[in-house]
Amino acid sequence: MTRLLVANDVPEQLVGAIPAMREALGWWAQRLIWHMQDDDILVLPTEPDASCLKYVAKITGTRHESLRVVVPPAGRAGAHNLSADRLADPGFRAAVRDALGGRRLDAVLPLCPDASVVALARSLGAEGAVPGAAFASQSGGALANSKAVFRAVAAGAGVPVPEGSVVGDPLDAEDTIAEFLGRGVPVIVKKEYAQGCNGNELLSPVAGVKPIGARRGLVLEGRTAIKRYVTESWDWLTNGERHKVVVERYHPGSRAVFAEYVLTDQGVELAGQGELVAAPMPDGQVLPAVGLAPVALAQLVDATRRLCEAVHALGYRGTLGPDAIVTPDGEILFTEYNGRITGSTHIYATVGARVVGKEAMRRRILLERQGWTAPSFQVAVDRLFESGLAYNPATEVGIVLVSAFNPVYKVISYCIVAEDLPAALELEERLDKVSPRARQDQG
Amino acid sequence: MTRLLVANDVPEQLVGAIPAMREALGWWAQRLIWHMQDDDILVLPTEPDASCLKYVAKITGTRHESLRVVVPPAGRAGAHNLSADRLADPGFRAAVRDALGGRRLDAVLPLCPDASVVALARSLGAEGAVPGAAFASQSGGALANSKAVFRAVAAGAGVPVPEGSVVGDPLDAEDTIAEFLGRGVPVIVKKEYAQGCNGNELLSPVAGVKPIGARRGLVLEGRTAIKRYVTESWDWLTNGERHKVVVERYHPGSRAVFAEYVLTDQGVELAGQGELVAAPMPDGQVLPAVGLAPVALAQLVDATRRLCEAVHALGYRGTLGPDAIVTPDGEILFTEYNGRITGSTHIYATVGARVVGKEAMRRRILLERQGWTAPSFQVAVDRLFESGLAYNPATEVGIVLVSAFNPVYKVISYCIVAEDLPAALELEERLDKVSPRARQDQG
Repeated sequence: MTRLLVANDVPEQLVGAIPAMREALGWWAQRLIWHMQDDDILVLPTEPDASCLKYVAKITGTRHESLRVVVPPAGRAGAHNLSADRLADPGFRAAVRDALGGRRLDAVLPLCPDASVVALARSLGAEGAVPGAAFASQSGGALANSKAVFRAVAAGAGVPVPEGSVVGDPLDAEDTIAEFLGRGVPVIVKKEYAQGCNGNELLSPVAGVKPIGARRGLVLEGRTAIKRYVTESWDWLTNGERHKVVVERYHPGSRAVFAEYVLTDQGVELAGQGELVAAPMPDGQVLPAVGLAPVALAQLVDATRRLCEAVHALGYRGTLGPDAIVTPDGEILFTEYNGRITGSTHIYATVGARVVGKEAMRRRILLERQGWTAPSFQVAVDRLFESGLAYNPATEVGIVLVSAFNPVYKVISYCIVAEDLPAALELEERLDKVSPRARQDQG
Repeated sequence: MTRLLVANDVPEQLVGAIPAMREALGWWAQRLIWHMQDDDILVLPTEPDASCLKYVAKITGTRHESLRVVVPPAGRAGAHNLSADRLADPGFRAAVRDALGGRRLDAVLPLCPDASVVALARSLGAEGAVPGAAFASQSGGALANSKAVFRAVAAGAGVPVPEGSVVGDPLDAEDTIAEFLGRGVPVIVKKEYAQGCNGNELLSPVAGVKPIGARRGLVLEGRTAIKRYVTESWDWLTNGERHKVVVERYHPGSRAVFAEYVLTDQGVELAGQGELVAAPMPDGQVLPAVGLAPVALAQLVDATRRLCEAVHALGYRGTLGPDAIVTPDGEILFTEYNGRITGSTHIYATVGARVVGKEAMRRRILLERQGWTAPSFQVAVDRLFESGLAYNPATEVGIVLVSAFNPVYKVISYCIVAEDLPAALELEERLDKVSPRARQDQG
């Protein structure tokens, strides 16, 4: 089986250019390496670290020498993302054809379904190898990653969402925010397409509400302050008036959970579930969601299925990762969906199903964390093995590296496989002594 | 049964402000009057012509005195459309409550599902009376009226669309247009939200392609001309960079047909079908689509159902009117959908089902035309009755007025009920002698 893996992330026209984050974007896209299989052709935004490729090949049992990596020349916007112009580059396409070497392309696996990936596949005579190619070719990927479209689809599917609305006009935004804040209720405002909570801001009428899952929290007292906030933020919130803005009630003290499905022509299937950890920005995750009561978990899985069925009817195929919160009252409310291979996908699909093995999630928990400091990927690998903390197939316990080396923060993410959460935290303490984990500023 | 009819059209933030068309917009929204029933409360953008209300009450057998009309004060953008601020006006809401007079609101029928209508219904304690309220409250209406979203949903549902794509970047637009024109193939470019073909332009590599269904046709020879067109038109095409643009292959010599469905919680149901007449802009319609072979009609109805089922899964409720073309080769290709009460809805639902009666479309054809000249609605009614051409229930033949008086062009639309198309055209000739029909400039 020959697959083409394309590490394209959500197009920059959507998420908006954040120059400081560009290098991190290129790093983040490399998570696709963890999905490698024998004979894959990997298209990456930048040359991967050889030690990283080798490490992932080893933990996944992939024949390293069967892989081919192709990196297109930098594009109009640089080399941090696989933009449409890079995937259309004739020299690059020739290189992919060369890597194929006459083999038939059986499957195309993009991080994010985009028309540019369908065009690439079409140029290789393999449009049908892209899941949901027709939908993706007509910019459907944007619909499956929009926080605004999400709210309409979720509401339409009868899936609960926090009280709020989608606004496209600064006066509407102001009115909506004022209505909540006037009732003493904090709101979260969200850019339509940003990732990793980088497009979320918390607005509260009073001090003391911790901005979990938002890049910052602001106290706005009265209409004038709200008006000033909207006026000053509108261009950023709407990506230069291009997109809508979500304004929704913020529920302090909630847990963030998710169930991820795979959508194929055969239907929708639960692939993984877990809980996100924020400190206060995304910091890690626990799979499965061991902190959730069985009834709540069943509700989460069921409601997520309904949502996925609606997106399936829309034509989307691939991984869909909706996020939800569980409020202190036990209510499950959905907050967004992500129509792409997320940061959770390789945790359950690779560390869980391939490294640990079949039914892994029935006997092990996976605690993923960002921010293990190291000077390079190779040094991190060496330290991990020397420490004796590396994952051991015999005991089915230990630590797996789950990200490339982040050149901006000089950190790597890891995933602890353990019997339960206390055991995982104990292992983590030991890892912290090998090399400390970079902690977020707790504000 | 007490219903609230809200003659809001697609929000101006979406279609873009066209000052010259504002008065026409207010006129066009009055088509909702033709949906009146006993005890309705009609919310209209401007005071209706009393003679028009009286006429429609008469032809539909509605007790005129049971109706209440409420017109909110002008809003920030004027009085031509029922914008969100107008529907939120406290005095207006009090007037609606007064018109209700304590009656329970059983149903809300907006022209176009919009969050502002849901907010109005909520303020009346009747949010549940709006079909698909949850979806509409989260700006779902925009999704059901976007020509860009349409292409993704249609492709996802396996419904055929003309070759083309959805672009969000001027360079992509240029590349896509150049690819078609380079092959000698004309394209139509479409604004995401415009109505009545006002957002469509035809681009051809050669002269002589008639721009049917487009506001103008341009001959673009070579890349430089294409670049200039895109550069000069981008702001207009994208409504100031707010929206996407559709670029698709144009098939000269095609017929424009439609099947309209009603989407309820129970499912989707075929409501009407017909053929649009352009000369070259929309000029009228024939219902049913008598010019279509039975096999082609069955294909149209089936494919439209698939599309409607996808939009139903999305959460939309109400009337959905997808448009398609039948190419000279007999291929049926879908070109857009309209998630609102269209200009066809009252033709089959009122003139057909209510004026003519049950199973009307099995024994009669309806030919609707725009542009009958008259100094006022009342004079048009008088002339129609004096001429003996007015619809006669005894013979089930004759002419029904189907629009308010258009104050910009001083015209009214009419619908001819006849046994077949030749008979309808004969009646039309006689009407033309009473008062001529304004013809479009045939370019």
